[in-house]
Amino acid sequence: MRMYDVIKKKRDGGELSTEEINYFVKGVTDGSIPDYQISALCMAIYFKGMTSRETCDLTFAVRDSGDRLDFSEINGIRVDKHSTGGVGDKTSLVVAPIVASLGVKVAKMSGRGLGHTGGTIDKLEAIDGFQTTLSDADFMKQVNDIGFAIVGQSRQFAPADKKLYALRDVTATVDSMPLIAASIMGKKLAADDDCIVLDVKTGSGSFMKTVEDSKALAKLMVDIGKSAGKKMVALITNMDRPLGRAIGNSLEVIEAVETLQGKGPADFTEVCLTLAAYMLSLAGKGSAEECRAMAEKAIADGSALKKLIETVGAQGGNKKLIENPATFAKAKYSHAVKSVRDGYIGAVDTEAYGLASLALGAGRNTVEDEIDYSAGIILKRKTGDFVKAGEEIATLYSCNKQSFARAEEILLSATEVCKDKPAEEPLVYCIVE
Amino acid sequence: MRMYDVIKKKRDGGELSTEEINYFVKGVTDGSIPDYQISALCMAIYFKGMTSRETCDLTFAVRDSGDRLDFSEINGIRVDKHSTGGVGDKTSLVVAPIVASLGVKVAKMSGRGLGHTGGTIDKLEAIDGFQTTLSDADFMKQVNDIGFAIVGQSRQFAPADKKLYALRDVTATVDSMPLIAASIMGKKLAADDDCIVLDVKTGSGSFMKTVEDSKALAKLMVDIGKSAGKKMVALITNMDRPLGRAIGNSLEVIEAVETLQGKGPADFTEVCLTLAAYMLSLAGKGSAEECRAMAEKAIADGSALKKLIETVGAQGGNKKLIENPATFAKAKYSHAVKSVRDGYIGAVDTEAYGLASLALGAGRNTVEDEIDYSAGIILKRKTGDFVKAGEEIATLYSCNKQSFARAEEILLSATEVCKDKPAEEPLVYCIVE
Repeated sequence: MRMYDVIKKKRDGGELSTEEINYFVKGVTDGSIPDYQISALCMAIYFKGMTSRETCDLTFAVRDSGDRLDFSEINGIRVDKHSTGGVGDKTSLVVAPIVASLGVKVAKMSGRGLGHTGGTIDKLEAIDGFQTTLSDADFMKQVNDIGFAIVGQSRQFAPADKKLYALRDVTATVDSMPLIAASIMGKKLAADDDCIVLDVKTGSGSFMKTVEDSKALAKLMVDIGKSAGKKMVALITNMDRPLGRAIGNSLEVIEAVETLQGKGPADFTEVCLTLAAYMLSLAGKGSAEECRAMAEKAIADGSALKKLIETVGAQGGNKKLIENPATFAKAKYSHAVKSVRDGYIGAVDTEAYGLASLALGAGRNTVEDEIDYSAGIILKRKTGDFVKAGEEIATLYSCNKQSFARAEEILLSATEVCKDKPAEEPLVYCIVE
Repeated sequence: MRMYDVIKKKRDGGELSTEEINYFVKGVTDGSIPDYQISALCMAIYFKGMTSRETCDLTFAVRDSGDRLDFSEINGIRVDKHSTGGVGDKTSLVVAPIVASLGVKVAKMSGRGLGHTGGTIDKLEAIDGFQTTLSDADFMKQVNDIGFAIVGQSRQFAPADKKLYALRDVTATVDSMPLIAASIMGKKLAADDDCIVLDVKTGSGSFMKTVEDSKALAKLMVDIGKSAGKKMVALITNMDRPLGRAIGNSLEVIEAVETLQGKGPADFTEVCLTLAAYMLSLAGKGSAEECRAMAEKAIADGSALKKLIETVGAQGGNKKLIENPATFAKAKYSHAVKSVRDGYIGAVDTEAYGLASLALGAGRNTVEDEIDYSAGIILKRKTGDFVKAGEEIATLYSCNKQSFARAEEILLSATEVCKDKPAEEPLVYCIVE
């Protein structure tokens, strides 16, 4: 087999065989196919697409390019949730404790953030002492004992995806639906869950800018998961505005805790309850409505918060921070961003909000960058809120005073203040099964 | 400027600015743009095309990426002919002497062959002693004295094209009209001619498989040349069958000499006369009809053959071989390929004929390969000819007996023998001005 022929076949609109896709992914993984041929094929796929069969084959080949987990020692149904990445998305810190408190196992591997989206692992490392590395045995024991454990991806999961993504990122071939689906699901299927709920973000802060595209991507990923024997469901959620009010690591942990205390922002609470409901329902706990009621109760009676405290304690984190989030270290400086005119907050560029947070020190531009855990943004006004000139839109936090000017500039130019109140948009557009 | 943005713009169907194209070609030349971004852009260009303006800019940037020649010391009009590459194409060896014998200067740089098409320089090296390297001063002096000189491309002409072509060749991005045009014209314009006649081959042995595509490519190249201040014309010629009867280096030189003696194959003679007529006409010698008559006379009165002998002598070659081509060294072995059935020779795969010749030792698979100058094929029957079972279709020549089986197999499977006489196709489809 020659890579040239594989590229030409796809360029001419042909359907690649399983053997051709396996040959390609193997060559990506072992380095035998040069980068220039990989990027040429990615661009041909960008233009010509892939059939469901091809996309499934690509996903499975990516999954099989590295280590695969075996969670068979965990007792009970294992469920996971995967978000396609958003700004201010701290849902894992809320839904996993809810679900675990109701007897469903969550054995979670999570990533670090790079660029404008923060990673869950970074958020957890804002908790003093929290260990994001556990041995397989300790990890599975904790899941069996408590119901929930979360670690960083230390293994060689889907190395083909790592290589492919790095190339796509610099060759303008990221925005290809089959390539996105194979990248997300290839990694996800390397873990060993029974049920997966996908949270497909739509809008300015995400891969997919329209609901239609998000639905198509969600359907593709749900079908891939099902053909790998998983129970699957996907939620299409709104990323045209940040979720909740907090962006930044310790700020988001605090907001997650407040949500588990029943005093979280309405939008964030709603998305968490919907996700938890579908996770529980997939795991066989009842209908989505019944499971939602159970999730609400787990917040109301404090059992979900107790589960988070238990998990943080088990992984060496300072439980007192969760018990009393007011004790989190504060950023050295803060700065109020004020509106220059009267009006309603209209469309916001969510990705730019993420970039502003990055500028404050809350994220990484390169993998070597150190994170300022206390840095970030608290939104005082969100889309649909009225603001008067001189009133605060957001508060910025950072240890680096110099960063405020740049972050404020990004934030203001990413926020429309308009005369008319914008139409209300749903938080959860639809469910794809 | 970022290469990422250039790729994305073209991917999304945008028109690249002159600055963006210059940035790209500079980065290709100096190695600052990685191969994987170059190939991704080539694939995006394959799908999205380029405007005439973009193609001109790309051509000029390719031309300017290396050395450019200065022929200003040559007296008189300088005309060149460029073929897009075919099988058995030895036209340069005939048209240059005709044109030079009529007082128009031909200062020719020519390439070596790789793959199924032979290079003119390889053919000339079949002549014992022929020097394909001359100093600039000697080269221009010879053109001034005799009217014709021909050397190999020793300089760094259009290095950007060399790099681009190598990448396109392995990423299935060769068949893109703007990329082909920029590649051919970028190199051609690095020389310093006043007039250029393009011979755009059409059919199984060439880049362009249809007359329509060939016309479009020809028009594009003619316009590029004109915008660089050249007098331009293009002929669309038939490559659905090899030109003449000889394929292979010394075999083709012999056929060229026979054509200059007035006893060449009709098809080859016709293409040579047409090309020479347009070369002379562009150089101001009269109308195409008048110039054709002049070219016929130059063959009939022996002046064109005399010019070839003079040129070979001036460049150190053994003139006696041209004066009496029967003295060329013969291949050690020959082998007759016979038809297995009665019928007319129908469609042939010209490229496969080139590959059969390559298998016999007449060409190079890699740049290091040594050429067997006496190897090749003499076609006894061509498209439209009747053949009986057991009659010879072609004679194979080689110093390597073992190569006959493979070459015969290629040749036979590339030759259709059919019941009905195939419709006659024109040799020259049209002229593009």
